[in-house]
Amino acid sequence: MLIERLSARDFNALTELYRSTLLASVLPFWQKYSLDHEYGGYFTCLDQQGQVYDTDKFIWLQNRQVWTFAMLYNRLEQRSDWLAVARHGVDFLVQHGRDPAGNWYFSLDRQGRPLVQPYNIFSDCFAAMAFSQYAQASGDSRAKDIALQAYDNVLRRQDNPKGQYNKAYPGTRPMKSLAVPMILANLTLEMDWLLTSERLDAVLDQTVHSVMGEFLEPETGLVYEHIAPNGSPLDCFEGRLLNPGHGIEAMWFMMDIGQRRQDTALINRAIDTTLATLERGWDPEYGGIFYFLDRKGHPPQQLEWNQKLWWVHLETLVALLLAYRLTQREDCWQWYCTVHNYAWSRFNDPEHGEWFGYLNRQGDVLLSLKGGKWKGCFHVPRALYLGWQHCQAMA
Amino acid sequence: MLIERLSARDFNALTELYRSTLLASVLPFWQKYSLDHEYGGYFTCLDQQGQVYDTDKFIWLQNRQVWTFAMLYNRLEQRSDWLAVARHGVDFLVQHGRDPAGNWYFSLDRQGRPLVQPYNIFSDCFAAMAFSQYAQASGDSRAKDIALQAYDNVLRRQDNPKGQYNKAYPGTRPMKSLAVPMILANLTLEMDWLLTSERLDAVLDQTVHSVMGEFLEPETGLVYEHIAPNGSPLDCFEGRLLNPGHGIEAMWFMMDIGQRRQDTALINRAIDTTLATLERGWDPEYGGIFYFLDRKGHPPQQLEWNQKLWWVHLETLVALLLAYRLTQREDCWQWYCTVHNYAWSRFNDPEHGEWFGYLNRQGDVLLSLKGGKWKGCFHVPRALYLGWQHCQAMA
Repeated sequence: MLIERLSARDFNALTELYRSTLLASVLPFWQKYSLDHEYGGYFTCLDQQGQVYDTDKFIWLQNRQVWTFAMLYNRLEQRSDWLAVARHGVDFLVQHGRDPAGNWYFSLDRQGRPLVQPYNIFSDCFAAMAFSQYAQASGDSRAKDIALQAYDNVLRRQDNPKGQYNKAYPGTRPMKSLAVPMILANLTLEMDWLLTSERLDAVLDQTVHSVMGEFLEPETGLVYEHIAPNGSPLDCFEGRLLNPGHGIEAMWFMMDIGQRRQDTALINRAIDTTLATLERGWDPEYGGIFYFLDRKGHPPQQLEWNQKLWWVHLETLVALLLAYRLTQREDCWQWYCTVHNYAWSRFNDPEHGEWFGYLNRQGDVLLSLKGGKWKGCFHVPRALYLGWQHCQAMA
Repeated sequence: MLIERLSARDFNALTELYRSTLLASVLPFWQKYSLDHEYGGYFTCLDQQGQVYDTDKFIWLQNRQVWTFAMLYNRLEQRSDWLAVARHGVDFLVQHGRDPAGNWYFSLDRQGRPLVQPYNIFSDCFAAMAFSQYAQASGDSRAKDIALQAYDNVLRRQDNPKGQYNKAYPGTRPMKSLAVPMILANLTLEMDWLLTSERLDAVLDQTVHSVMGEFLEPETGLVYEHIAPNGSPLDCFEGRLLNPGHGIEAMWFMMDIGQRRQDTALINRAIDTTLATLERGWDPEYGGIFYFLDRKGHPPQQLEWNQKLWWVHLETLVALLLAYRLTQREDCWQWYCTVHNYAWSRFNDPEHGEWFGYLNRQGDVLLSLKGGKWKGCFHVPRALYLGWQHCQAMA
């Protein structure tokens, strides 16, 4: 469904689009093709038709699929088949996901044997989110303990997320990453039912201060990926890197916190930042949002810099719908229409279900997979669910 | 200069093309723009016009530039300006390149402070090549010691090249990489003047056995990047990976060894493998050689899989010229013409010097840089030098 005229704000039709795509196309795709009935857990390497082309199990994606089905059970409808899909992943992850010290591996083979060590904290982050939602859905107290343990791992390791696998020489060019406060913001909101309000407020204050006060550059309104510990920008590849989708995703987390705290100033700054990032990140020639840019216009080191990725566009749709819902700003609606028409016409695959993940700069499908090492059951259903809720509220 | 007719084998013109591009375009580019006269060493992050856009110093590329200028001094002409360029890098590297245990860092900042730890053995590999050539050129016995120390590092670390930074969980899915025997083959030939003939022969036997007997799959004639320790193929992302440029580069190393040993069977197998890899790696739609493929046709995990890279095409030109020089096989000449016309018309930049590095699938320039984190003064001058020599021998 394309939006043909800016003036046609048909939120009933948009609600139906998001709802039906989630319920009739995306969730059935993962329910039908991803469950490994022999060894447990999920296959995520699925081709356009849903056929498995690789059986390795990546912990980020295992946990994210648990989260998705448990979250929908908690927030949308208590469907026993959704809870069963979540439990299918939980059972596998409880048995195989962690090393003896309780850190979450990066990947396992099909049978659950560890393949790649716990070299970053994002596996733990998504485990905390997954087990928190599953504990709520199932009432399983063991799941709650696992969620809290994973959350503590994230907090404990946040200053050196890669641990022994960190290849940076200590002291020469220390830097911190946007990813850390960003996931802490989102994760802490997810865990709110398990945290004291003091702890919750303290972490949210810290993340808002860090994202909006340190990573956001006031002159340009752009969000940096890496800065010096004192907040100053760095003139090196990592320091010049812009990841527009990541910055915009961080901004809807900020709008979420602003809405929760009735902080209009925070909401407005987050929206301004979203739009500034879009102005900079939009490809004027072929449309779509670039994956990576260099803030000084130099060549980025990422060869995939000009590709158009599914999650970048979905997170932007969520940010713009939330922005418009909160403020009715005309510029948010105009940008929404532009990104909507680009994304829905290219990524969505009504024939076989789910969305394509990777387009080339021109907007043609680059890899026809529906899932892989980094794409699973997460960004598409989360964005469709949130888009549905935002549109319904405006309908 | 394009080859318009297959029958026109004008090796005088080709000799002149390779010679003049090397001497009048490529070497002057690096001599003019890359030397850091303030802190020593080389800038490698140079834009299309040669302007510096980043000042970090990557050890692979620092050593490779030393190698290039010292090698040309040794083999082509004893020009004092070439030796001075090599010495400029050597002085910086001797002072800053190694950790206290003698392992070579991955990168330094402009002043020479370590940025990234010695997390792989390729820095040591290129250090051994660079200091070996420089020791020959300069007669500096300290350089010879450094070369031998680096060579010993490579041999000592070859079974666990990443050391403590290896993220693979031990035992679940052990694999070995083509890169290790490949660099050992090339490096050992480079170091022949420093090694006993027994050691030389033993290492060469080992690398030929490994590349041609283990990584080369007899049924398909393709070279794998990663195999199990017992030589069997692996059905996982790394195991299915094909890197056509890497495989073809390995094949001209094998032809080199075959020529040295007058081993016609080895030469013929290396040529057959080169052609089988080209048949598989050539893009039937837009021309050029793909960067990565999955041998089962599944989506590769590398998003840059369909890009066309300078070194892939240059190593292929070298392989095909050497193959034709050794055998006069018609299929080698036909493929040479195809790759020549593709590569020379797109990568070479006669206006500003040097070659572009990265084209998109369609063959348009993707990044206009002449040097970066991975592209320095190495593949272009080496291939132009070798192409010149091969063409001259056939002229």
